[in-house]
Amino acid sequence: MRLLNTFTILLWFVTAVTVAAERPNVIIIFADDLGYGDLGCYGSPTIRTPHLDRMASEGLRFTDFYSAAEVCSPSRAALLTGRYPIRSGMCGNRRVLFPNSKGGLPTSEVTIAEALQQNGYATAQIGKWHLGIHDGSRPGDQGFQRSFGLPYSNDMDARADLPKGSAGSATPPPDGWNVPLMRDGEIVEQPADQTTLTRRYTEEAVRFIAERNGKPFFLYFAHTFPHVPMFASPDFKGRSRAGIYGDAVEELDWSVGQVLTTLRNEGIAENTLVFFTSDNGPWLIMGDQGGSAGLLREGKGSTWEGGMRVPGIAWMPGRIRPGVTSEVAHAMDLFPTVLALAATPLPDNVTLDGLDLGPMLFESRLLPARPFYYYRGDQVFACRLGEWKAHFETQNGYGQPRAESHDPPLLFHLGRDPSEKRSVASDHAEVLSQIADAIQTHKSGVVPGVPQLK
Amino acid sequence: MRLLNTFTILLWFVTAVTVAAERPNVIIIFADDLGYGDLGCYGSPTIRTPHLDRMASEGLRFTDFYSAAEVCSPSRAALLTGRYPIRSGMCGNRRVLFPNSKGGLPTSEVTIAEALQQNGYATAQIGKWHLGIHDGSRPGDQGFQRSFGLPYSNDMDARADLPKGSAGSATPPPDGWNVPLMRDGEIVEQPADQTTLTRRYTEEAVRFIAERNGKPFFLYFAHTFPHVPMFASPDFKGRSRAGIYGDAVEELDWSVGQVLTTLRNEGIAENTLVFFTSDNGPWLIMGDQGGSAGLLREGKGSTWEGGMRVPGIAWMPGRIRPGVTSEVAHAMDLFPTVLALAATPLPDNVTLDGLDLGPMLFESRLLPARPFYYYRGDQVFACRLGEWKAHFETQNGYGQPRAESHDPPLLFHLGRDPSEKRSVASDHAEVLSQIADAIQTHKSGVVPGVPQLK
Repeated sequence: MRLLNTFTILLWFVTAVTVAAERPNVIIIFADDLGYGDLGCYGSPTIRTPHLDRMASEGLRFTDFYSAAEVCSPSRAALLTGRYPIRSGMCGNRRVLFPNSKGGLPTSEVTIAEALQQNGYATAQIGKWHLGIHDGSRPGDQGFQRSFGLPYSNDMDARADLPKGSAGSATPPPDGWNVPLMRDGEIVEQPADQTTLTRRYTEEAVRFIAERNGKPFFLYFAHTFPHVPMFASPDFKGRSRAGIYGDAVEELDWSVGQVLTTLRNEGIAENTLVFFTSDNGPWLIMGDQGGSAGLLREGKGSTWEGGMRVPGIAWMPGRIRPGVTSEVAHAMDLFPTVLALAATPLPDNVTLDGLDLGPMLFESRLLPARPFYYYRGDQVFACRLGEWKAHFETQNGYGQPRAESHDPPLLFHLGRDPSEKRSVASDHAEVLSQIADAIQTHKSGVVPGVPQLK
Repeated sequence: MRLLNTFTILLWFVTAVTVAAERPNVIIIFADDLGYGDLGCYGSPTIRTPHLDRMASEGLRFTDFYSAAEVCSPSRAALLTGRYPIRSGMCGNRRVLFPNSKGGLPTSEVTIAEALQQNGYATAQIGKWHLGIHDGSRPGDQGFQRSFGLPYSNDMDARADLPKGSAGSATPPPDGWNVPLMRDGEIVEQPADQTTLTRRYTEEAVRFIAERNGKPFFLYFAHTFPHVPMFASPDFKGRSRAGIYGDAVEELDWSVGQVLTTLRNEGIAENTLVFFTSDNGPWLIMGDQGGSAGLLREGKGSTWEGGMRVPGIAWMPGRIRPGVTSEVAHAMDLFPTVLALAATPLPDNVTLDGLDLGPMLFESRLLPARPFYYYRGDQVFACRLGEWKAHFETQNGYGQPRAESHDPPLLFHLGRDPSEKRSVASDHAEVLSQIADAIQTHKSGVVPGVPQLK
């Protein structure tokens, strides 16, 4: 009997260790303000991205993948929690967090990192955070055992002696930024030398992957670029056709290549899901330092397609069949997708807005039809249902002081008219009615969180 | 001595036969009004083109390939002769040839087909001609031993009883067109059943390739679609996300797949250069039946990038190294490229406007820098030199009654600003001066041909 027990325990132990060793790793690579049209595999004629193009050709490239919000902080909150930002309070009038903001991602929110850490994963955040700098909201409070990067955008926290108008500008004095580089909550360099950020983030990521010590890991790798002000390391500066914006994206592409190569070299590529996407569309008013949404209308800050439809590439060689999909998916799907892949239970009593993409990624099944809501701040401006998108309010990302209301709403067929040029609302009252119903249902299920972006 | 002579003759004969058997075949596939953004590999989110995407991944995809003109007849004349249309007279006020036009491609012009036929090639034209219906201008007069297709655009030659305004419309009565289908100069069907045109063209192409009888061949395969009115065969109709326009392009993609598969099955893929491109940009005013120029400005009929920058894919497995190039090339380069590949001497006393792309295609060499002139009709509206493009006059393809002159010209950097949004003329007087000099030199070397599009 004792022998049997010992054997049973041994068997359980071996199995547990084997299962643990086999649990897949997950890396989310998040670009900042990268547009739908800024990668070679999405049709950029000017920016060369051989590593992301290869990732796309080996993986699944989404034509209709959305960020959860039109600007930075809300988009990041939604990605990590799987919830529309309205639920966590991570949206509102100021649009994003600023260095003087009091709020941040509430401690009560459960991030992918928290869930996975509790399930035995090693977790790390590398790059831009932008979800709060106060107690409870920092990377270490939200499930990340390690963190390295900037607390917010690289154009925030400018030096006091900068010429007026430099903040938010595409052409700041190169040494004018005071944003700190932090490691595990401590400032390690201020101002951060932004010319080498992408390289240093990448080295950190490679090190984290290599040092995983047999544990499965979750890496949230949120690049600082191509957000203005744009920088690139000497190896990349002046190398692209597309000026400094192209240089920064090409360095980001190199970084992706380094990560995938490391996974291959470590022999864990087949056991690691890598998902690449962007936090919102391109910041068009930045001129040569703003990206391109390709054929999509408008950019960052707006609920036109160019503001929220972004590149999305899933890669897991041998598990994900290479191809291109036009299924509609979004950043909030990553929470349930990653948890399912990591055999981690969903948190109790949390309303999620995403779907587990696993059946689609790993078994080529279709996703169920479902609406997608385009929020600007805490308002639903538009909704997509199948190929149809209705706009109830529209406002350009920047430069249009007030939203324009539409009654009846504008209605576009995103298959026949991906650039949202020709509203066909008058011919499709039934579609508008379905969409209005969907929004009604959605709103009645939303309990807004305490506003954090005051 | 006699033995030696016999041996020498025999050796010459064997060598000649071997060389003849080895001379490469050439296929030019020409789409009609296909936009820069209408293929998957050029970033279309809505139109699936797996065969062209594969062709691109196996071949060389150009990001900066141009048609020689902003509309149909001039573009085709230039492609086949290697000369700006002004030289052949194939441009002018009426823009293109109409069924009642008296002119056509002059007999004195030398086409690729004429040059290759004289050098022992089998030649065929399949699809749309649109270079003249009178003696001297027809396919049989211009070097094509076989021809099958429409004499002009599929929206011309409407039935007399069509409702007013139907001609040129995107939504004609489906049986309203009277355009004839011709074989070797004879009408074989009128009106042509346009729903099966792409399929029948493709069958004809496959047959021509299979029946080549040991001869090298040149096939000029000029599709009717996606020019309005749009049709697709039952297998493709309603299949794409992008409506009937997408259906037509997806059937065209299927056709390309059939051609490449035939080459593979016949064992001649490695000995056949296939070049795919479009005659001009998308016809934007056609709404759901107009394509997309992606991030490029404007479309067919204009000298903005969207009017003349088009997909360009070169394929010759084992000879052309797969990749993407941003070298500037154009349809007039195909004449000297094809003739060099076919070891065929250039015609005497003919001014050519293209370059042999062979060293670039087959040896990965860079092309020499050279200006490209954007003609609208018989006028130079714009010029590109390196990354710089200067517009002296601009006019939208349709809907802007008169051209707008610019002094100083508009100047765009097509690397940093591929969408031509931000003129930087005031900062670059020296570039404008270089471009003005180039135009001056070009114009002084042009002897205009007798106008054919009266």
